[in-house]
Amino acid sequence: MPKTLTIHGDSGSGNCLKIRYVADYLAIPYRWIETSVLTGVTRTEEFLKLNPAGQVPLAILPDGRALAQSAAIMLHLAEGSALIPADPYERALMFQFLFWEQYSHETAIAVRRFQKHYLGKPDDQIDPALLKKGDAALALMESHLKSHDFFPAEAPTLADVALVAYTRLAPEGGFDLTPYPATTAWIARVQTALRIA
Amino acid sequence: MPKTLTIHGDSGSGNCLKIRYVADYLAIPYRWIETSVLTGVTRTEEFLKLNPAGQVPLAILPDGRALAQSAAIMLHLAEGSALIPADPYERALMFQFLFWEQYSHETAIAVRRFQKHYLGKPDDQIDPALLKKGDAALALMESHLKSHDFFPAEAPTLADVALVAYTRLAPEGGFDLTPYPATTAWIARVQTALRIA
Repeated sequence: MPKTLTIHGDSGSGNCLKIRYVADYLAIPYRWIETSVLTGVTRTEEFLKLNPAGQVPLAILPDGRALAQSAAIMLHLAEGSALIPADPYERALMFQFLFWEQYSHETAIAVRRFQKHYLGKPDDQIDPALLKKGDAALALMESHLKSHDFFPAEAPTLADVALVAYTRLAPEGGFDLTPYPATTAWIARVQTALRIA
Repeated sequence: MPKTLTIHGDSGSGNCLKIRYVADYLAIPYRWIETSVLTGVTRTEEFLKLNPAGQVPLAILPDGRALAQSAAIMLHLAEGSALIPADPYERALMFQFLFWEQYSHETAIAVRRFQKHYLGKPDDQIDPALLKKGDAALALMESHLKSHDFFPAEAPTLADVALVAYTRLAPEGGFDLTPYPATTAWIARVQTALRIA
């Protein structure tokens, strides 16, 4: 029996769903091991042996080797596909948006969603800087999407997967998408293009 | 006269120095425009036209097109060089460490250094979580370096550039490197291998 890719992931985590979106779109078979970020299972000795950083998603490749970090896993799975632009500058911009998402977008929008939606914190117990930082990220996306269909250009790439994962869930973090019509239209466009339910 | 790569960067910022390290090592000519993160110049209308995210480093490529995000710029400059492993799994691990650095290392070690060293904040006005998070990042590096010479394996890659930039400056952030002898030895090794002064 050939070995299959295994994904340890939490279905409520946008970072984990990114891997599912890419694998499903590229028809890469995988086994999904549901791994909650809330129960402490990612801090057990057994899990830390697989990923010393104690984070999901974690991929166990068909040859048994481990790979962490959502963007690194996406890049590995999508190698050679149209989700990574062939043009060097467009590919560089895809990387720019992948790193920007993890540094300036996820750290506000996903973090506020986690505190509000998962931990159930009332708004006045959430750092107000998160709302401001998340809105700045959404405004930057909106500005880009006024003149482009996707990130970075006119065809969907891994940057769209990375950005859509938490942008579509932003309302759960208390972010109002009404002021961002180009972004709202882009969410629908990416979901259609990548067949994300 | 041929156009040259231009780097807008702050010489005190590890993220900006990463670009200098890579360009110097690969003997890529460039013009450096000193751009302080403290004076507000990166929030001016003129700069935001070049990079809507208002961040340095920012590269203006020889053809005049802009590229932001330190790791994206490094990847673009180093394409085809030995700083990016040819082996697909080693390359994937390099990406893993590049994203981990920006998400789990820079956000603690560089942030605490900025607050302590640049803003001059006393320790009791700095979020204590930063010290804990930074020490966890250093411990993870130390564990890796007990069995490897570099990140991810036995030859220097962009992951080493990314990680050394702020690890070597960690003492300015109040981090004690004494408990991390393998990391201290690795800093010297990377500086020698990459000819970082």
